[in-house]
Amino acid sequence: MSDSLYLRIAAEVEQGLDSGEYPPGSRLPSVRRLAAEHGVNVLTALAAYRHLERRQRVSARPRAGFFAALPSRAQQASAEVDGLPSAATLVRVDSRMSQLIEWSGLDIGTQLHMAEAHGSMYPSAALARRLQQTLNQRPELISAYLPRGEQARLHRLVCELAAQWQLELEPDAILFTHGITEAISLSLRLLTRPSDTVAVETPVYFGLLQTLEALGLKALEIPCTPDAGLSLEALEFALRHGPAPRCLVTVTNFQNPTGALMPDEAKKRLLRLAYRHGLTIIEDDVFGELYFGEQHPTPLKAWDSRGEVIYCSSFTKSFAPSFRLGWLSGGRHHAALARLSNSSSLVSSALYQGMLADVLANGDYTRFAERLRRRLARQMRQLADAVLAAFPKGTRLRRPQGGLLLWVECPEGLDTGRLLERALAESISFAPGLVFSAEPRFGHCLRLNFGQPWSPALERAIATLGRLAGEQLCQ
Amino acid sequence: MSDSLYLRIAAEVEQGLDSGEYPPGSRLPSVRRLAAEHGVNVLTALAAYRHLERRQRVSARPRAGFFAALPSRAQQASAEVDGLPSAATLVRVDSRMSQLIEWSGLDIGTQLHMAEAHGSMYPSAALARRLQQTLNQRPELISAYLPRGEQARLHRLVCELAAQWQLELEPDAILFTHGITEAISLSLRLLTRPSDTVAVETPVYFGLLQTLEALGLKALEIPCTPDAGLSLEALEFALRHGPAPRCLVTVTNFQNPTGALMPDEAKKRLLRLAYRHGLTIIEDDVFGELYFGEQHPTPLKAWDSRGEVIYCSSFTKSFAPSFRLGWLSGGRHHAALARLSNSSSLVSSALYQGMLADVLANGDYTRFAERLRRRLARQMRQLADAVLAAFPKGTRLRRPQGGLLLWVECPEGLDTGRLLERALAESISFAPGLVFSAEPRFGHCLRLNFGQPWSPALERAIATLGRLAGEQLCQ
Ligand SMILES: Cc1ncc(COP(=O)(O)O)c(C=O)c1O
Ligand SMILES: Cc1ncc(COP(=O)(O)O)c(C=O)c1O
Repeated sequence: MSDSLYLRIAAEVEQGLDSGEYPPGSRLPSVRRLAAEHGVNVLTALAAYRHLERRQRVSARPRAGFFAALPSRAQQASAEVDGLPSAATLVRVDSRMSQLIEWSGLDIGTQLHMAEAHGSMYPSAALARRLQQTLNQRPELISAYLPRGEQARLHRLVCELAAQWQLELEPDAILFTHGITEAISLSLRLLTRPSDTVAVETPVYFGLLQTLEALGLKALEIPCTPDAGLSLEALEFALRHGPAPRCLVTVTNFQNPTGALMPDEAKKRLLRLAYRHGLTIIEDDVFGELYFGEQHPTPLKAWDSRGEVIYCSSFTKSFAPSFRLGWLSGGRHHAALARLSNSSSLVSSALYQGMLADVLANGDYTRFAERLRRRLARQMRQLADAVLAAFPKGTRLRRPQGGLLLWVECPEGLDTGRLLERALAESISFAPGLVFSAEPRFGHCLRLNFGQPWSPALERAIATLGRLAGEQLCQ
Repeated sequence: MSDSLYLRIAAEVEQGLDSGEYPPGSRLPSVRRLAAEHGVNVLTALAAYRHLERRQRVSARPRAGFFAALPSRAQQASAEVDGLPSAATLVRVDSRMSQLIEWSGLDIGTQLHMAEAHGSMYPSAALARRLQQTLNQRPELISAYLPRGEQARLHRLVCELAAQWQLELEPDAILFTHGITEAISLSLRLLTRPSDTVAVETPVYFGLLQTLEALGLKALEIPCTPDAGLSLEALEFALRHGPAPRCLVTVTNFQNPTGALMPDEAKKRLLRLAYRHGLTIIEDDVFGELYFGEQHPTPLKAWDSRGEVIYCSSFTKSFAPSFRLGWLSGGRHHAALARLSNSSSLVSSALYQGMLADVLANGDYTRFAERLRRRLARQMRQLADAVLAAFPKGTRLRRPQGGLLLWVECPEGLDTGRLLERALAESISFAPGLVFSAEPRFGHCLRLNFGQPWSPALERAIATLGRLAGEQLCQ
């Protein structure tokens, strides 16, 4: 075996690792394949991988082959200096996400860590009756595909709804997806390739960080505050000076976790900025229908004359979580997204779509959503009052104008990760600040869910949380 | 602007195109990005792209940027000589798929082109009542997540079902997906990277070709006949001599379109072959529950002691198409698939899953599926008899032992693409052979769906098809 030969092959693989052709954690070509590609025997190819393994650039997994190594802590640290969290950082976020999902299954008395309204906030009995009516009237909806006429009717009704919030769409520019999660995942798969960078808000909901991680993408975190929302100054700076991100994902209305609402003027400015820099925007409007004011805030998409915004919306929060009905309007990417969705999940449930059309048409949807909004607004006030009363001096929050989430900034010294451990022992959960960024910036913050009906037990739980926070600060 | 500079940049991009780093049809780095990467100004980067555009290696789309060109016809032809259909060939298949989907929406009197049973074959009224019962008993299922206890119960019940067909699985090795389409798409996303090769049967259902195309994958087509099923000889030859495919996707039971059932012995041989060559298998068992014999044929997975098979199954055909309930058991890839699914579509509908658990537990599922199987077996015989009576001499078919599809091989001279045009004029549809391969091998074949209730109109339609086929042969 020629020494120089295996080193040359190793060097080429290493180049692929550096260029991002093989993102961290991805599977590398099999030894047989590497050998075939370079016209050498398998021993030489294996020697190349072993060499890289000793240098900790690749790792072997029994029977699974070789994988691009995750960056070491040292590499991570230098990546963080650049403000570009590495994929490895995201992997850690991912495991925290799984942790949170685990908790939902656990026997925790007061669960405040999710971004969902409690099941009892939705009229299940009424929904069950509507489902049965829909199926009795149109038993053919049991088949997988939505009949074309039905589809057109549903899309028209969704367009009528969107028009109420100043968003004018054509019925054939609507695509239903499996929750908004699928809409965002499809959009990212279309717009990016592994190791690309995507601009996101920080703090940002960990589901998005998890999706970026699964696609091997890097997150460029742009500050977002409850008061001012996404910092356009920071975004503009990044667009001017950094490596250009492929796209921006932004929750324009009642951001998760800060609750920030981007003002109309900022939305228009953001759009001009995007046009100037050729930046595609994925607008996640999952909470828009949960407004406490006069009406659903106007989405960014409403002013998008060039089709640069992929607008993503969902009925999961405002109507029936378990129906998993999300939708998108993809601008100039729409046709490509429709094809991708077809090969990823084929179609959305015809029965749920058919029933949604019925409740949009007969006004039930509006009535149900209206009641949900009123209850959420009240619960938000109750929760915010209780937090301010119970938490240590210096705790700050801004009452959101919609959504499900209250972002609480405790005094800087507080470690909400440790607080959570104490809280879980008292059978109370919340989402600690550390899960909302790949960087350790929000360790003193926490996110509470006000989708739980107000109750004496909940009131006591907030008092307990506040007491635990105070105790930690006094230690 | 230095001449040699833009040419050097162009050469580098071209290398990326050749190596598959930029698969055909993919979006290339923006001009700004290319310029930044090479430390040149944007005019130089643009010149590089324009150079490649003149050479037809890239194509510009207004406001969208530059894209890797699809292979030209000449390139395709040479690719076909290698037996490796190019991605561009798949693009054509894709548009045919859309065409077929279009037809389902059209007003065609006799629709025989799908792989679905007609809506009336499913007991919608009974299903609606069961849905309502489930929701009345457990209104909390309206929330997005399936409570952990419920989840465990459903997985146990699915394991009990699978055990009836000799497949022993652990409850936590089950993952529900959005139809089997999502299960297969996730598996392919995990196992492959763009421009990898995947072994598939030929003929094969076009949905799979479409999925491969969307992921930028190449199909290595391994012959499959109604009598003998997948040719293990051809597969072994390919594994020994060709570039190693990343994985094999196979429909082991009642293949689409041939209806082939892989015998147990062949399944065991296939598994030994896969182990020997380090080949991961994605087993698509979408039709397994639609058996006409004694029981669901034993899946490949049942003998997989090493976790090399990703088993994909679905309740879409055997229970309720519109519920979109597929599932997989991923062997040694299971945990990675669960993470990927989480970030692609979050969770499957809790309500549908909850109701499925109820009907699995109370025996309704078995009763419904049993009735469906009996009706399908009868319809298959009626359709096969009618085809043999009506079609020209020399037409061959093999009665499948399950599934929904009858594969008809007409005399070699017949062009079923032309036949379809004539048939559509008579308001009859079927799936022409040409959509089942990227190569023009099955132009004399057609696939008929026996999921439609037998009726005098259907009988007349088959007689018409047979007459049109005979007329074409006599021309
Ligand atoms: C901001 C945001 N986007 C997306 C999602 C996922 O929504 P869906 O359930 O529609 O997939 C959530 C869920 O909480 C969210 O908070
Ligand atoms: C062989 C095969 N696999 C997968 C599918 C897609 O199934 P699902 O509806 O469960 O996504 C089909 C649909 O006809 C099929 O024939």
